[in-house]
Amino acid sequence: MPVPAGDLHTPISPQGQALHDLLTEQLPAIEAGAAGHDRDQSFPADVFARFAESGVLGATVPAELGGLGVERLHDVALALLRIGAADASTALALHVQYSRGLTLTYEWRHGTPAAKALAERVLRGMGSGAIAVCGAVKDHHTTVTRMTPGEDGGWHLTGRKTLVSMAPVATHFFVYAQYEQDGRPMLAAPLVSRDAPGLTVLDTWEGMGMRASGTSDIVLDDCPVAADDILLRNPAGTAGDAALAGQTVSSITLLGLYVGLAQAARDLAVATFTRRRGTPSAATRTMLAEIDARLYAARSCAVAALANTEQVASEIVDDPAERGRRMMTPFQSAKLMINRLTLELVNDCVTAVGGAAYSDSHPLARIYRDVRAGWFMQPYTYSDGVDYLSGQALRLPQDNDYMTIRAARPSAA
Amino acid sequence: MPVPAGDLHTPISPQGQALHDLLTEQLPAIEAGAAGHDRDQSFPADVFARFAESGVLGATVPAELGGLGVERLHDVALALLRIGAADASTALALHVQYSRGLTLTYEWRHGTPAAKALAERVLRGMGSGAIAVCGAVKDHHTTVTRMTPGEDGGWHLTGRKTLVSMAPVATHFFVYAQYEQDGRPMLAAPLVSRDAPGLTVLDTWEGMGMRASGTSDIVLDDCPVAADDILLRNPAGTAGDAALAGQTVSSITLLGLYVGLAQAARDLAVATFTRRRGTPSAATRTMLAEIDARLYAARSCAVAALANTEQVASEIVDDPAERGRRMMTPFQSAKLMINRLTLELVNDCVTAVGGAAYSDSHPLARIYRDVRAGWFMQPYTYSDGVDYLSGQALRLPQDNDYMTIRAARPSAA
Amino acid sequence: MPVPAGDLHTPISPQGQALHDLLTEQLPAIEAGAAGHDRDQSFPADVFARFAESGVLGATVPAELGGLGVERLHDVALALLRIGAADASTALALHVQYSRGLTLTYEWRHGTPAAKALAERVLRGMGSGAIAVCGAVKDHHTTVTRMTPGEDGGWHLTGRKTLVSMAPVATHFFVYAQYEQDGRPMLAAPLVSRDAPGLTVLDTWEGMGMRASGTSDIVLDDCPVAADDILLRNPAGTAGDAALAGQTVSSITLLGLYVGLAQAARDLAVATFTRRRGTPSAATRTMLAEIDARLYAARSCAVAALANTEQVASEIVDDPAERGRRMMTPFQSAKLMINRLTLELVNDCVTAVGGAAYSDSHPLARIYRDVRAGWFMQPYTYSDGVDYLSGQALRLPQDNDYMTIRAARPSAA
Amino acid sequence: MPVPAGDLHTPISPQGQALHDLLTEQLPAIEAGAAGHDRDQSFPADVFARFAESGVLGATVPAELGGLGVERLHDVALALLRIGAADASTALALHVQYSRGLTLTYEWRHGTPAAKALAERVLRGMGSGAIAVCGAVKDHHTTVTRMTPGEDGGWHLTGRKTLVSMAPVATHFFVYAQYEQDGRPMLAAPLVSRDAPGLTVLDTWEGMGMRASGTSDIVLDDCPVAADDILLRNPAGTAGDAALAGQTVSSITLLGLYVGLAQAARDLAVATFTRRRGTPSAATRTMLAEIDARLYAARSCAVAALANTEQVASEIVDDPAERGRRMMTPFQSAKLMINRLTLELVNDCVTAVGGAAYSDSHPLARIYRDVRAGWFMQPYTYSDGVDYLSGQALRLPQDNDYMTIRAARPSAA
Repeated sequence: MPVPAGDLHTPISPQGQALHDLLTEQLPAIEAGAAGHDRDQSFPADVFARFAESGVLGATVPAELGGLGVERLHDVALALLRIGAADASTALALHVQYSRGLTLTYEWRHGTPAAKALAERVLRGMGSGAIAVCGAVKDHHTTVTRMTPGEDGGWHLTGRKTLVSMAPVATHFFVYAQYEQDGRPMLAAPLVSRDAPGLTVLDTWEGMGMRASGTSDIVLDDCPVAADDILLRNPAGTAGDAALAGQTVSSITLLGLYVGLAQAARDLAVATFTRRRGTPSAATRTMLAEIDARLYAARSCAVAALANTEQVASEIVDDPAERGRRMMTPFQSAKLMINRLTLELVNDCVTAVGGAAYSDSHPLARIYRDVRAGWFMQPYTYSDGVDYLSGQALRLPQDNDYMTIRAARPSAA
Repeated sequence: MPVPAGDLHTPISPQGQALHDLLTEQLPAIEAGAAGHDRDQSFPADVFARFAESGVLGATVPAELGGLGVERLHDVALALLRIGAADASTALALHVQYSRGLTLTYEWRHGTPAAKALAERVLRGMGSGAIAVCGAVKDHHTTVTRMTPGEDGGWHLTGRKTLVSMAPVATHFFVYAQYEQDGRPMLAAPLVSRDAPGLTVLDTWEGMGMRASGTSDIVLDDCPVAADDILLRNPAGTAGDAALAGQTVSSITLLGLYVGLAQAARDLAVATFTRRRGTPSAATRTMLAEIDARLYAARSCAVAALANTEQVASEIVDDPAERGRRMMTPFQSAKLMINRLTLELVNDCVTAVGGAAYSDSHPLARIYRDVRAGWFMQPYTYSDGVDYLSGQALRLPQDNDYMTIRAARPSAA
Repeated sequence: MPVPAGDLHTPISPQGQALHDLLTEQLPAIEAGAAGHDRDQSFPADVFARFAESGVLGATVPAELGGLGVERLHDVALALLRIGAADASTALALHVQYSRGLTLTYEWRHGTPAAKALAERVLRGMGSGAIAVCGAVKDHHTTVTRMTPGEDGGWHLTGRKTLVSMAPVATHFFVYAQYEQDGRPMLAAPLVSRDAPGLTVLDTWEGMGMRASGTSDIVLDDCPVAADDILLRNPAGTAGDAALAGQTVSSITLLGLYVGLAQAARDLAVATFTRRRGTPSAATRTMLAEIDARLYAARSCAVAALANTEQVASEIVDDPAERGRRMMTPFQSAKLMINRLTLELVNDCVTAVGGAAYSDSHPLARIYRDVRAGWFMQPYTYSDGVDYLSGQALRLPQDNDYMTIRAARPSAA
Repeated sequence: MPVPAGDLHTPISPQGQALHDLLTEQLPAIEAGAAGHDRDQSFPADVFARFAESGVLGATVPAELGGLGVERLHDVALALLRIGAADASTALALHVQYSRGLTLTYEWRHGTPAAKALAERVLRGMGSGAIAVCGAVKDHHTTVTRMTPGEDGGWHLTGRKTLVSMAPVATHFFVYAQYEQDGRPMLAAPLVSRDAPGLTVLDTWEGMGMRASGTSDIVLDDCPVAADDILLRNPAGTAGDAALAGQTVSSITLLGLYVGLAQAARDLAVATFTRRRGTPSAATRTMLAEIDARLYAARSCAVAALANTEQVASEIVDDPAERGRRMMTPFQSAKLMINRLTLELVNDCVTAVGGAAYSDSHPLARIYRDVRAGWFMQPYTYSDGVDYLSGQALRLPQDNDYMTIRAARPSAA
């Protein structure tokens, strides 16, 4: 399953090429709107309307179910790179949908009959542009979201989720919740429609960056959920490292977004000095060389991790825990380096361009704020990534599931 | 003229102590208002009213002229450090006034009779809290501000200045301008009252950080200036390295502000982990140690550069160019290191604290935006600092006056 | 011509696999001898005897001419990685032969009839293990090596070359020299046998690292050269960027060597902590995670640059200067990053392992000394790399041929 | 007890000035011999003979006891800086004697009568140049050095010590040992003469750097020790943070040595480019500016920590544990930063100077090897320093005594 090494410039599948061509048309409008949406902290709903109508929104849905059938992680990451270079917020929101497409496709192919049926239903909606579905994973710090049995095999859902991107245009939410079975805590992901009674989308986001990503809180107050709208997960805390496989596929394409931010920053810096007359200063030349070397490294790491991960996913690996770790490890090495390299790169671009970049409306100022977000995206934050990678190097027995880690981690009051 | 090395915690003069005590009372209010002014991009006029009334605003005015007589650079920097830790924008705006106090005191003591008289007049007003005077140094990129002779020995001033901090409460502006004498371009700094005909303060600032610093543009449209309201400067381009002495004194106390930002970031990070239960992660411990080491280094560099500069200023140095370089060099070594160390430190604090710090209203998010400003403050930006320091190391003949450099530097169209 | 991205673990051609298998047998002996040869500054002649006899020495010679036919840069770099992890000096010396194999193969396929004939003759000798041929490129700082016409169309060669690795076992040398034609300086690469009259190999090397690489000076005193033992080059200074293609192919596989050093350092550090009892310290865990992330990035950059370069080499590019730049640019981005990442990585390994690593006989001490060599290897040193990359980013017209640059560069007296 | 901030150029006491003047005479010979002693791994016995005869060797002995009476840490560090710039190995060996002078002076002033008597005896010998006394602190990994009671109140000492610098010219050794009292492990520091029966100095050192420091192992085989030749220490593991005071004074002046290495590297790099013709490259200018900024920071940190430590030492602090921590913390912040800054600086100097610096006889190659030693010197290594500083920031209860930490730390087999 080889890809052109070092290259995150061109798609490697025909489906990826089709998406690439659609984006080529749409990118200018996305880029043109970025500054305004950042300033106003408004969601680019028009962009997503065009995504829905053109098929971009359902790109990771299998062709049989009406999507573009883009399944190669490389091609998904490349799309996020290009959109991220134009507007990182848009790429972050779209990633929510893309990630869901990839993981639901896995359910559709390998899940239980119930999971298959639900996945197919949602994927068909995504493929037609009718469904935009968020993952509502992280509980608000004040609560744990729980499901309790209702009548007719249905359930009721109560709690609050935070950091749900793309919420302004979402039609549905997969809400990670706990329920109890025989006194044992179980995990599930019920699907809730935006117009479900008891569901409220709060416009609470005030991020330093990624301001146009439509990141919101979702409040659930005794929301009814039908029995066949639920993906069952493992009992709480039992997944072990097997869960790392899905977590890797869900998040690794975001590496493209980070590289996109770096690419945009680099291009802005180079354009500034190409436009200026006269000899660039010694520090400028040194920074430009370092910038291009870092961008090359970030891109190379991303390509490598995407390929390594897909390679493992395509092999037969007997031990699912081993499979999970073999997918997560290259991802985390790449993520740690890319987070660092792109932060340094963006800082050098800001330094090189000078005071003009300090205006909040300068695209470099937006990138300076946006680029920090990558360090907090799961899996893993920097601190958790250090624990994961050093634990792998030393073969330490430890829990690597970020949801469990997060639960155990003391948090700021 | 020794100071306690490594210490930027306590004042070294009685006058500095007096200022220190005044600030101790006022800091809580400054800190309490910082988030709001940052959010609204509003100037803390109430804080400056209290500064004026309590004597803080005229602290660097000699006691004989009604000020607190704080003349030790260490004590001025310490004040900016403490205010900067509470709200960097406030410290930046106040620095404008403090810097003017220091340089006008020099004029009052060593200037021509005309300069002395003007300096005394302004200093008395600053000492009583009646005058708040900005330096309007940097021309807007669209124009060069010029003075032309009027009637009665007066002049007329036309142009546009940018990056003028503290403008919302300024009563006067020293406007750097060119005029012609015998066909030769000369430099001058006329004093213009805020209510002078033709002067307009524009509220154009939209910085990524330092949002509450009241940084504005000043438009001058044929503004009348009286003959005795002008500080004459050298013919354009002739000052040479002698000018570095005044530029150092004008700006070196800002090192305190940068250290203050770092101190605040460090304290926030430590407080977060003190509050959290449980063992801090490996990466957290490593970052906290690095943070404290960097803060110590930044503080040590600042103290050293302040003392080195004062030392040279107090000595008899025959060659004024040599004197200028001997004052500027430690300042620039310290500035380059402090800019870098504090940026790294703030980033580590953000990383350690995690996603919470990414909320735009979190004080670390404000510091993350504010701390970048130091890299652009003159003298010198990073690129110019590299040219200056390497030129000194290699004893290259070169122009070190940042105003001339800037004029010669190609700028973005 | 795709390769598995991110992977510099397995060969991608059957020929590369054959070499890989041969090395698997020979690596233990190389590793076992490394410390002793480093201590004594002695050349591992036994290792090279085994290389010659087993076919390793002629690996990059086409199979038709008796070699293993390893032509994929990836596979050559992988071999140097594995040998470099065992003993960097051995890899550096072997690279001399491998590089010659690759470039002579190009001459054999695309050169003039005279060049083809000479290349074939040398390649056959290399393939059988009878010829080990050094490139003697860099003039000693005291002289310029020159060729003058002799009788019968032959030439005489006089001068001195430095930094010639693998010299202790070399049977021949390609000596870069100048001659004059119609008053114009021309470049040529005459082949000189080790037993040629007038040729002396000096044992002058006293490197801080790479001590077993057999790096020597070659003195040439009126050495006779036959007419058909000469590869003609461009007139001096006329090659332009077209020359970058050959320079890239000659040197890019050294990226494998650098990564090998990093891999060895990492494995030593991990082994130390795996062996120690007890919980690793916070700093150790942080460093181990960073070490693995850096190693991943270094490896990814190397794979990417090798693939990008081969890709361009395999395409039809109309403008040879453009082709040269498109091959050199990824190489230089990767080299700059890999030089930096591996230096940081090795330093972290030394820090983590602690005082034990400071013993000169500890393999990490050897690696600490060896790893610095990469920064000076052409093309380019760090300073020249900065000029090259920033010049490419800004499309500056400049001379990129390191031989010309070096000639023009002022050197230490 | 103020010192000129930012200055580690001039002595601050008359005694320091006297030492400074003596060194000014002797430094050229030290510098001239450095390369040879490094190459041959030989101890500069002639330099130490001259030290003994001129009073340099006893500089930290009180004047009343025949020494120069240099007691200011700043002046001791400055001496080590200057010697370290000429030859770091010599400075490291001399530090052994200086450190002993400072701590014995403390015993002489504040110790028990028995300790006073012993301290006076040794100090008088040091003052006259008759005694050169090493601290033999670290046990060889194979053993624990122990004292057992002999006849007449005397003791017998058996064990092996490692990393004892200045051993070739030592006349005596303070050997840290354990003994048992009422079944409880106690610590003591018996003084053993070089010609004591059972004592052997092994010439085992093979450091990557600091090769001329005479660092040796000491084997003790039932060595007799008289009762009044013993400094009693705390019961093992009971000293707590009070011990940090003495550990700080013992080691903090080594900061001067590290800065000296950086100064020497910087001067070599600048001299190289001053000597070369032509314009320095962009990367060279950038590195030279960073080098000077880092040197300034390293020097500032050293001055600050020396002054902070002396300040606390001179104050009345009720809680000896608090006193110990207040002395150690600035030292450790400074050490961590100086270790890092000087390593980066030396690397940039090597990069800037280029291939010439890779010759093992180039002074930069020696500095590159020497500078790494600072990271392993106690207290603390980098890992322990991270634990210490982060523990202080978070006020974690933990053992900060490096001897206990080291004992508890798992070590490589």
